[in-house]
Amino acid sequence: MKPYVLGIDIGGTNTVFGLVDTRGAVIASSSIKTAKHAKFEDYIDELYTEASRLISVNDAEDKVHGIGVGAPNANYFTGMIEDGVNLPWPTPIPLAQMISEKFGIPCAVTNDANAAAIGEMTYGAARGLKDFIMITLGTGVGSGIVINGQVVYGHDGFAGELGHVIVKRHNGRLCGCGRTGCLETYCSATGVARTAREFLEIRTEPSLLRKIDIEAITSKDVYDAAMNGDQIAKEIFEYTGTILGEAMADMTVFSSPEAFILFGGLAKSGDLLLKPLVNAMDKNMLSIFKGKPKVLLSELKEADAAVLGASALGWEAK
Amino acid sequence: MKPYVLGIDIGGTNTVFGLVDTRGAVIASSSIKTAKHAKFEDYIDELYTEASRLISVNDAEDKVHGIGVGAPNANYFTGMIEDGVNLPWPTPIPLAQMISEKFGIPCAVTNDANAAAIGEMTYGAARGLKDFIMITLGTGVGSGIVINGQVVYGHDGFAGELGHVIVKRHNGRLCGCGRTGCLETYCSATGVARTAREFLEIRTEPSLLRKIDIEAITSKDVYDAAMNGDQIAKEIFEYTGTILGEAMADMTVFSSPEAFILFGGLAKSGDLLLKPLVNAMDKNMLSIFKGKPKVLLSELKEADAAVLGASALGWEAK
Repeated sequence: MKPYVLGIDIGGTNTVFGLVDTRGAVIASSSIKTAKHAKFEDYIDELYTEASRLISVNDAEDKVHGIGVGAPNANYFTGMIEDGVNLPWPTPIPLAQMISEKFGIPCAVTNDANAAAIGEMTYGAARGLKDFIMITLGTGVGSGIVINGQVVYGHDGFAGELGHVIVKRHNGRLCGCGRTGCLETYCSATGVARTAREFLEIRTEPSLLRKIDIEAITSKDVYDAAMNGDQIAKEIFEYTGTILGEAMADMTVFSSPEAFILFGGLAKSGDLLLKPLVNAMDKNMLSIFKGKPKVLLSELKEADAAVLGASALGWEAK
Repeated sequence: MKPYVLGIDIGGTNTVFGLVDTRGAVIASSSIKTAKHAKFEDYIDELYTEASRLISVNDAEDKVHGIGVGAPNANYFTGMIEDGVNLPWPTPIPLAQMISEKFGIPCAVTNDANAAAIGEMTYGAARGLKDFIMITLGTGVGSGIVINGQVVYGHDGFAGELGHVIVKRHNGRLCGCGRTGCLETYCSATGVARTAREFLEIRTEPSLLRKIDIEAITSKDVYDAAMNGDQIAKEIFEYTGTILGEAMADMTVFSSPEAFILFGGLAKSGDLLLKPLVNAMDKNMLSIFKGKPKVLLSELKEADAAVLGASALGWEAK
C-alpha cells in the first residue's frame, strides 16, 4: 500500500488540503480560496496545481494511495455534490470523478460531518468505538453516525442529518432548510447568537452583552460574557445545552451509541454547555440507557481535523 | 444445513411456537400459556415438552438448524431478558442459554420488534431492502431498524426503541417508561384509546363513541366508528397519523430508510391512518428526503408473523 493519502476539506470560504501518513500525521498542508473561481473546472485546476506542488515538494509522487474529500452535501454513493449548498457552482457536481480523473488517483467523497466521524474513528476520540454519534457544532449542526463500525449513509447516501430533527414542533425557529424548529436553529453557533438576541429583547436585566450591537452578537461573545459571570449569558448556554441534551436522549433510543462526540467551536465551551447538556440527557434518558452513552470531545487538533477526517476516507478510495 | 428452524414468540399472555422451513412456510405451530408457571424453569420444561411433540409429529427430530426467539426486552448480544417487563418471572433471565441447553439446539433471541423486522426482511415486505424501519403498532409502539442489511442492535443490544422518542416535550402523556410524551403514548392502540377519551371529554359533539363506556373504549371501537362516518373518530385517526408521520420524518434524517414498514393491528386501519400519516411525513420532511421513503404494510400473515420473525433468527443461531 502506498504510504500517504491526500485529504481535502472543501468549505464555503477555503479549501484546505494536506498530505497524511498512515499514523494520521499531517506531513504538510496548504489551502486555496474556494470561491475564487466561477467555474468548477477552474477551481479543480488550481486545486490540482497546488496539491501537486505539495505532493511534489514532499517527495510523495506515486506515493498517494487515495484522495478523501469532505464537502457540504457530498454523497458517498454517487460521488456528487448534489444539492444547493453554500458553494459558488451549480449542482450537481461530479466531484469524485473529476478529482480522480484530474489526479489519476482514486477518490472518495462524503459530507463534512461524516468525514469528521471517520477522522475521529481513525485517529481521535472514537478509536476503538463501533457505535458512536459525532455531532458537529458549527455554523450549523451536522452529524456523522457510526453503527457497528460503519458510517451510516442510508438508502440514498444522505443519512445522518441530525441537525434537522425537529426540537420545537410549534412556534419553532425558521431554519435554512425551509422548515421550523430544527435542532440547528438552537444549538449551532448561529443558534446561540439567536438565543442571545431573543433573551436580550425579552428581558430587562443588565448584561455585558448589551454593550454589543445586538445584530452582531456571536456565540463567542456569549461565551466571553458567561466566563465573566454574566447571568443572561450563562442562561443562554443552559438553554442551548438543555435542548441538545434532550435531543441526544432521543437519538440514543435510535442507535444506542457508546458515546457522543462533540466537535466544533461550541464544543469548546466546557461546562457552560456540557453541564446542562449532560443533565438534560440524563433526565430525559429512557431508563435502560441511563448513564450509558458517554459525552466526549473531539481529540483532533482543530487546524488538522477537517483534513484528517477527509484523508481517512482516502484509505478506502478505489 | 438442516431444513427447519423453530420460531418462538414469547408474549405476556401466550407463547406461540412453530416449525418453519427455508421458504418461510409454517409447517406446524402450537402455543402454551406464558403466565401459567411461577417458575421460569417450569415454563421452559412445558415449552420443551410441547415443542418437542410438535417437532416429533412432523418427523423433524435432528432436522432443526436453530431456534429463534422474540421476547420483550430480549437482548441479542447477551441472550438475556434483561429488564422489568410484563412477564411473570424475575429478570434477568438467561433465555438463550436455557433454551439451547434444554433443546440441545443453538438459540438466538431478540426483542419482538427486531424479530418482526428480521421476519419482514426474510419473508415479507422488506425482501430486498437493505435500509428500512419496522414500526410495530400494538399495545405499545416498537421498532426494528435495519441499516445496510443489518439489524441495529447498538452498543448494548437495546437500540431501536423508537416508541420512546419524545413527541411532546411539554405536557405530554405519562408513559409506562416513567417519562412523558413518548410516541407510544399517542400512536399505539392504547394511545388511540387515550386520544378518544381526551377528545370525548373536551368536546361536546355527538359521537357513536359516546355509546361506549369511556374507560372501555378500544382502538377497534374508534376504527369501527370512523368507518361508520363518525367525525370525532375520524379526527382521532387524523391526530394519531399526524403525530406518527411527524415522528417518521424525524427518523428519516437519522438513517434515510428506503421504506417504513407498519405492522400490528393499527396498521390495518387503511387510509384512516395512512392518509394523515403520509401527509404529515411529507409536510415535515427535510427537502433532500422528500418523497423518498415509502410507507409499506407488513406482508406477513398475522397469525404467523411473530413466529416467522422469530424463526428467521434461528437461521443465524450458533
